[in-house]
Amino acid sequence: MPLQEQALIRRIRQRGTRGGAVVKGIGDDCAVLRVPPRQELLVTTDLMIENIHFKLAWHTPESVGQRCLTRGLSDIAAMGGEPLACFVSLALRKDVPQPWVDGFFRGLLLWSAKFNTPLAGGDTAESLSGVYADIVVVGAVPRGKAILRSGARPGDGIYVTGSLGGSAAAITALAAGRAKSLARHGFQPIPRVAIGAWLRKKGIASAMIDVSDGLSTDLGHICDESGVGAEIEVSAIPRARVSGRVVPLEMALHGGEDYELLFTSRKQVPSTIAGIHVTRIGEITLRKGMRLCGAGGRLCELPVRGWEHFRK
Amino acid sequence: MPLQEQALIRRIRQRGTRGGAVVKGIGDDCAVLRVPPRQELLVTTDLMIENIHFKLAWHTPESVGQRCLTRGLSDIAAMGGEPLACFVSLALRKDVPQPWVDGFFRGLLLWSAKFNTPLAGGDTAESLSGVYADIVVVGAVPRGKAILRSGARPGDGIYVTGSLGGSAAAITALAAGRAKSLARHGFQPIPRVAIGAWLRKKGIASAMIDVSDGLSTDLGHICDESGVGAEIEVSAIPRARVSGRVVPLEMALHGGEDYELLFTSRKQVPSTIAGIHVTRIGEITLRKGMRLCGAGGRLCELPVRGWEHFRK
Repeated sequence: MPLQEQALIRRIRQRGTRGGAVVKGIGDDCAVLRVPPRQELLVTTDLMIENIHFKLAWHTPESVGQRCLTRGLSDIAAMGGEPLACFVSLALRKDVPQPWVDGFFRGLLLWSAKFNTPLAGGDTAESLSGVYADIVVVGAVPRGKAILRSGARPGDGIYVTGSLGGSAAAITALAAGRAKSLARHGFQPIPRVAIGAWLRKKGIASAMIDVSDGLSTDLGHICDESGVGAEIEVSAIPRARVSGRVVPLEMALHGGEDYELLFTSRKQVPSTIAGIHVTRIGEITLRKGMRLCGAGGRLCELPVRGWEHFRK
Repeated sequence: MPLQEQALIRRIRQRGTRGGAVVKGIGDDCAVLRVPPRQELLVTTDLMIENIHFKLAWHTPESVGQRCLTRGLSDIAAMGGEPLACFVSLALRKDVPQPWVDGFFRGLLLWSAKFNTPLAGGDTAESLSGVYADIVVVGAVPRGKAILRSGARPGDGIYVTGSLGGSAAAITALAAGRAKSLARHGFQPIPRVAIGAWLRKKGIASAMIDVSDGLSTDLGHICDESGVGAEIEVSAIPRARVSGRVVPLEMALHGGEDYELLFTSRKQVPSTIAGIHVTRIGEITLRKGMRLCGAGGRLCELPVRGWEHFRK
């Protein structure tokens, strides 16, 4: 292991937080965690790659570190779980300056403290080009209570937290040169951990997913796994406001990285959970496929379309 | 998510194995695992990067997949744990041919079946250059029984499984053009999971680590974490034989990626565990620092020296 990496590990180790579920953190062959009794374990891994998921020119290192952990925490939230610890594997090209690495960990550890998810380990390596970060979040949920994508049934209402399309709109503004950096823009998605856990405790959600790839893609996953279809009311979709303007419908339908929760329920759902607005946007149908219901009740197919945030 | 990735996820999902600890594998926001009662959880993550840890020209895709899992399983072994499940995050450049990806998973899943470690999830992304694989292995160990690096005490014997330097010698032969590929060479390290678990059950090892970065580096970690020193008998070090020749001492001392277990003990240690030879190579000392004891009892300092397998 090159000395540069050893220094990085020392720094991470100094910053790694202990306590909670972490019996032994950074500094051995494995981390040792204690899982609360009668709980099942949740594990998620997410890659973030320079110039695919972020750009050094657009994103502050703090926001990359935060967003990295947001991706993992959001997956734990989408199962109704609570996070126990996180791990990050980081491959850095040689010319990434030290302040960038420090900023990355500052952002990651800010979120780690806020969401009570100690950094318990990881790996570091040199990359020959680009920055690669793989985040692992481990969480827990009472046995048999994880909210899967497969539980939606015809007649269930479809709900989404917060608003959609904000992340796509912010990136589009940057790409078009209308904004200088995401930091100034102030767009930082927040993982909906408290809402996910609340929905599980109350037994409200029949199926759940986080909106990481866009509403059409992620609703498609719920429909596929549950063997059902969906009808979405166009006018009901909560579109984000960015720089004072409501984002275009396309961004709310297909834009990714909003990290809101999308869930189905046949129960009474409050309009606000943990201070965040929750909106009913449609209904699960027996008939497969996804349809959009527009003005005057006209129906059209909702295509699954990913959003390519940016490519070199 | 690009369609190419979705196809990859479908393939992984079809190949992902279930059962054992895995309640819900690939296909939701998180995997759901069941941790046996009264056990603590072990988590390890390891990066493998093209042209840093492997070369497409030298390593078959199967051997990269196998070695990827070996790195994680070896960390679980070094804690005395037993693996529950694995996860792989894979970033692939566009020009990596499909048969390479198939071969990678064939190798990984061969080891996954052999070591009873189902592939329960992961992530995929496009990389702009190079292949990046981050392997996560989750394991379990009875509460409070994980074998740490910090338990070595003066007077403990120092032991190593198998032989050392084989991986460094194989790579050196390839780099010098004396061998054509590692596949022909037949060098494939095997994670010592059964030995690690046996040592823990019998309460024999006071400290343990796997030899991934080389004997000098990894023994250094045990000494640092335990606050002790070590004396190694040069003649006792079990050097690997490669192509009929005993490897040079330097490779046995500093060569990495052998994935043997290095442990300390004050108890009676059998000379063979789970069919693998175990050798006493020295003793833990109160005096800090590591020393090599050569012919005629002469002592010299053992420097910590990493082995740079290859660089572009």
